[in-house]
Amino acid sequence: MRLVVIGGIAAGMSAAARARRVDRTLEIVVLEKGAEVSFGACGLPYYLEGRVRQPRELVHYPADYFRRERNIDVRLGVEVTRILPARRQVATAAGEVIAYDRLVVATGTRAVNGLPGGDQPHVFTLHDLPGAERLLGFLRDRQPRRAVVVGAGPLGLEAADALRRRGLEVAVLDGREHVLRREEPALTEAVRRQLERHGVGFAPSVRVEAIEPERVAGYPADLVLLALGVRPRVDLAAEAGVRLGRSGAIAADDRMRTNLSDIYAAGDCAEVTHLVTGRPAFLPLGTTANKTGRVAGANAAGLREHFPGVVGTSILSLFGMGIGITGLSEAQARREGFSPVAVTIEARARPKYFAGKTSAVTLVAERGSGRLLGATVWGEQDTLSRVNVLASAVTARLAADQLQFLDLAYAPPFATVWDPVLVAAQQLVKAV
Amino acid sequence: MRLVVIGGIAAGMSAAARARRVDRTLEIVVLEKGAEVSFGACGLPYYLEGRVRQPRELVHYPADYFRRERNIDVRLGVEVTRILPARRQVATAAGEVIAYDRLVVATGTRAVNGLPGGDQPHVFTLHDLPGAERLLGFLRDRQPRRAVVVGAGPLGLEAADALRRRGLEVAVLDGREHVLRREEPALTEAVRRQLERHGVGFAPSVRVEAIEPERVAGYPADLVLLALGVRPRVDLAAEAGVRLGRSGAIAADDRMRTNLSDIYAAGDCAEVTHLVTGRPAFLPLGTTANKTGRVAGANAAGLREHFPGVVGTSILSLFGMGIGITGLSEAQARREGFSPVAVTIEARARPKYFAGKTSAVTLVAERGSGRLLGATVWGEQDTLSRVNVLASAVTARLAADQLQFLDLAYAPPFATVWDPVLVAAQQLVKAV
Repeated sequence: MRLVVIGGIAAGMSAAARARRVDRTLEIVVLEKGAEVSFGACGLPYYLEGRVRQPRELVHYPADYFRRERNIDVRLGVEVTRILPARRQVATAAGEVIAYDRLVVATGTRAVNGLPGGDQPHVFTLHDLPGAERLLGFLRDRQPRRAVVVGAGPLGLEAADALRRRGLEVAVLDGREHVLRREEPALTEAVRRQLERHGVGFAPSVRVEAIEPERVAGYPADLVLLALGVRPRVDLAAEAGVRLGRSGAIAADDRMRTNLSDIYAAGDCAEVTHLVTGRPAFLPLGTTANKTGRVAGANAAGLREHFPGVVGTSILSLFGMGIGITGLSEAQARREGFSPVAVTIEARARPKYFAGKTSAVTLVAERGSGRLLGATVWGEQDTLSRVNVLASAVTARLAADQLQFLDLAYAPPFATVWDPVLVAAQQLVKAV
Repeated sequence: MRLVVIGGIAAGMSAAARARRVDRTLEIVVLEKGAEVSFGACGLPYYLEGRVRQPRELVHYPADYFRRERNIDVRLGVEVTRILPARRQVATAAGEVIAYDRLVVATGTRAVNGLPGGDQPHVFTLHDLPGAERLLGFLRDRQPRRAVVVGAGPLGLEAADALRRRGLEVAVLDGREHVLRREEPALTEAVRRQLERHGVGFAPSVRVEAIEPERVAGYPADLVLLALGVRPRVDLAAEAGVRLGRSGAIAADDRMRTNLSDIYAAGDCAEVTHLVTGRPAFLPLGTTANKTGRVAGANAAGLREHFPGVVGTSILSLFGMGIGITGLSEAQARREGFSPVAVTIEARARPKYFAGKTSAVTLVAERGSGRLLGATVWGEQDTLSRVNVLASAVTARLAADQLQFLDLAYAPPFATVWDPVLVAAQQLVKAV
């Protein structure tokens, strides 16, 4: 009995490792086209910044660990070019054919880059280690002074932070009016202020049609970082007859099974259920990739395990300000057919004598029922706690009147007696 | 229509302020026997430490603010000596009689001190501002070198931290085997190690029968801090015929009404529903006091508002290590009639390249259903997030298999891709 896993970054290695724990006798083969497995790509901005000095700091466990300690046959530099479901085989670029009994597809995403001029040597994405190495080589060898980041999503903001810390002049452009695809004016304003406070220009609503040799939409640039988002890498699966969902990612059930028997999908290439809408969604995140990999591995090894879904929780640091997101924004909720109300408050996160600063909380709830649909939080202190509480509340379908009485922890070194989450919930109760 | 509030620390002022927002015409009188209202007593350990330099830093709003901005008649130094429900009056120590239409009793707690020798001038509690001032005066004038803290509850540990930071030799004694009344060996061991790492002695299972002039249970002491817990201050209410619950605190319904008409109870003197057991409990905490005060004030002013209850969440800092508690320990769960299972894990809280350290998580769940009943967390990073997520999960009655898939936030500056809460939940799934 052989399990083959295509892709060994996050979901692939989670699947392989879990399958091994479930079944000690299974033959497990991981085919990874790159030079590393178990790679924490979310750390790339910190490699760019210089905080991470060696790529190996981003590797959770090296390939040899999996081979030696887990009896997993990890093969690096092996690119799968075809899946042959009828024969239960995969074919590689080197012409090898490998049979499988169970297959996990964990092919991840590719960075969007369809702009004219996007192939110039001073234009980069920050999607994988080879790309990051090229960018670092360029910074070392060419000493660029002015960088333009195209895209004010999470990666664009993290990369702007990293480039600025390296001493470059940085401008962030985005085709939309708002940052982080959230359509929230208060958040956009907070991000703009934070960028300007740290000497980074921000230009929303700038349509970038092409990358010119020395400028982007009029902004001078001897380095351009494209952060236009990612698309699921699904060609391999689609050509084999694996069904895609409406998002373009692979459709999978809650056991991470595709429409083809014994073929599972996991990680960023697969859809997951959004627990607020109840519908499949493409929400590529490292946390979800690891969880769906774990579930796919368990099921591929013979267990029955179910992945309930996600609420789309994320966090990023922008020059020390945490920005946390979970669930739907007001605009997203409206598009999904809800009748939403939203409130935004600012409140102190810790007492003054523990250097307390204000944090902001936006809550979105369904009018009438008061059910919490989503939240955005930002501030310099305890953003993690706030977004995680709200993610838990969205998952548990708490309503505003339950949220306002949540028994959250308080002691002066950590919090205020009325956590900003509770202050926001009190306003929400009045609004719904 | 006149609302009278007895006690103006946390619950009392929350009740008065909320009643004012609900009804702009209500006459509101707050009778506070001390010299301050709206006082954050949880900050007293930081006044002892020296971080808080002036008591006014612990006052959220001064009495004049409430008088001027909220039209609340705050009377300081007024001690109520009797409640006369039949006449709807209260009588004060100064012989004044004040009529009420609605009454909120927010008389708080008193510190336990029944030990022989407990009245010596070198023996203190840290329960209110006058007591803290006396202790600070003693430290200044007498320069004690060796302190013994009796009681390893939250206040005892915070006070030991504060005294040690002031340069004293400190020993913590407790009559029980375990700290924080949690009966958790792993937690006790972590606390013992942390105390020893910072030069504080810890002696569990030491029965203190009396305070001798220069020693306590054999430990030399020129300063003794009693942290033996608190009891609800209920004499006034009980003498008036207000019913007490089995805990000894005032029995109140979910609108904070007592058995006597138009008399409400709020804050530490009142019982609240424990949401895990469904039974009334005495859980004196500043967070709960503020919430129940708010609800009592709303109802006293004519609204219908319900306080669902608490899960007993708290946090404290011990030399930079956060300790968070929510719900029931395994021993408590067993005593409450559950068939509990517990797991304890340690996992890294952040990546190494963000100076990540390990954190510990103990989870307690009901065997079979897997329902989360309680949790204890400790570590130097993000304890607030972890305990608040688990408090939310206990409140929402999540089970282990739901907890393991919670969509918690991840980015390298904040967390690991598998938050210690999720690592613990995976173990819990196997155990239940």
